[in-house]
Amino acid sequence: MISKEHTWIKVKEISLRDDERIDDLQRNHYGIIQRKGAFCFGMDAVLLSGFAVVKEGEKVLDLGTGTGIIPILLSAKTQGMHFTGLEIQEESADMARRSVAYNGLEDRVEIVTGDIKEAGTLFDRASFDVVTSNPPYMNDAHGIKNPQDAKAIARHEVLCTLEDVVREGTRVLRPGGRFYMVHRPRRLIEIIQTMKMHGLEPKRMKFVHPYRDREANMVLIEAVRGGGALLKAEPPVIVFDENGEYSEEIRTTYGY
Amino acid sequence: MISKEHTWIKVKEISLRDDERIDDLQRNHYGIIQRKGAFCFGMDAVLLSGFAVVKEGEKVLDLGTGTGIIPILLSAKTQGMHFTGLEIQEESADMARRSVAYNGLEDRVEIVTGDIKEAGTLFDRASFDVVTSNPPYMNDAHGIKNPQDAKAIARHEVLCTLEDVVREGTRVLRPGGRFYMVHRPRRLIEIIQTMKMHGLEPKRMKFVHPYRDREANMVLIEAVRGGGALLKAEPPVIVFDENGEYSEEIRTTYGY
Repeated sequence: MISKEHTWIKVKEISLRDDERIDDLQRNHYGIIQRKGAFCFGMDAVLLSGFAVVKEGEKVLDLGTGTGIIPILLSAKTQGMHFTGLEIQEESADMARRSVAYNGLEDRVEIVTGDIKEAGTLFDRASFDVVTSNPPYMNDAHGIKNPQDAKAIARHEVLCTLEDVVREGTRVLRPGGRFYMVHRPRRLIEIIQTMKMHGLEPKRMKFVHPYRDREANMVLIEAVRGGGALLKAEPPVIVFDENGEYSEEIRTTYGY
Repeated sequence: MISKEHTWIKVKEISLRDDERIDDLQRNHYGIIQRKGAFCFGMDAVLLSGFAVVKEGEKVLDLGTGTGIIPILLSAKTQGMHFTGLEIQEESADMARRSVAYNGLEDRVEIVTGDIKEAGTLFDRASFDVVTSNPPYMNDAHGIKNPQDAKAIARHEVLCTLEDVVREGTRVLRPGGRFYMVHRPRRLIEIIQTMKMHGLEPKRMKFVHPYRDREANMVLIEAVRGGGALLKAEPPVIVFDENGEYSEEIRTTYGY
């Protein structure tokens, strides 16, 4: 799948295609390889990495890791022992592997090419302490013109559904393990129903509002496998202040 | 149940017991009769009255109306045709009826003494456009020392459960009718599950945070009988500003 039309250069012994760049993650001097015109990570992934709790020595799986932003950020922010990123698109997985190498993280981060729908067979049951996912938000895959398009696969439920992510994530999570997801509030009721159906109990929720007086456009959820029924609705994230600048929280906590 | 130990005065032809007062509702010069040492309405009821949408000509039922705060506020704020408040405690219902008379609302507001668990037989099926409820929040009724205590009945699920409120409310609601509830976020997952089980689809949610950086301590929910699955998470209500004063929203929108 690696295109032959492009020229490649080497940066710190890492190959970089001519339409790729390395973006600074503002953490540990880490960088991530991204490509013009392709799906680039968004604030969603950064907020999820800030919301997720990973304790010392824990093992983490990111479902649909794309270019590896979540495991790379979590490896920088936490004392987690090991991070696995599962990605079905070989071209994204290859970029993720080169980013892991660029950051010297080969011992702590592994990128696996594979299908979320098969995560429960690719990995042992109950083998992770934490599962994270920034899955496709849109369940309108019928309308997609080009279902091979990498951006469409990242944004729409072309190759996996919400239920696939929740079901497979729960399978590989140990009892008491934590599942972290970012998604659209409009689908929250379905998310909660799906989690409950698979034995995940939502425990923390945090809404992200673009402005103080606008509806939330993202929701961050922590659910515990087999947890008890008590939810915390945490203080919201407000992305922009009244002047249209990134809010202090976004700048100080998330490094924008 | 009306106590004989007290003396009574007349205010605008309304009898007032010696431990009762009339609190100004800051709307249409309406007042509400409250009693020292008894359960007084809280910000919950005021916020729910602001969150609920009642259109011109609609019929509204408030389940567990207490001293009638929600129907009285909604009658002031909306063009709804008629409001019924159902209350099991005769002493509260009597206070509510006297408040209705004090405000000259006998044509638009009726207080019915009765059990939420029997609302579906007290009222015709599908006979209301809107149902509201500020039910008891706490499901720890086992620990209540005096289950006859009026405050305990208002706060704990002594005489009715969350499921009773949702089930009976849905029964009397027309298809497409709207159910409005204020509750504790900690029970949100159970609330959503219970609503879905009875054919109510949550459509709007608004969290109330005491301060900008604290967990929500109330959640306002709009659910539609037989509605489609798309939720809006509205801008949060922040009750106090950084100086510990009521926020501008609380002062201007809710009249505190």
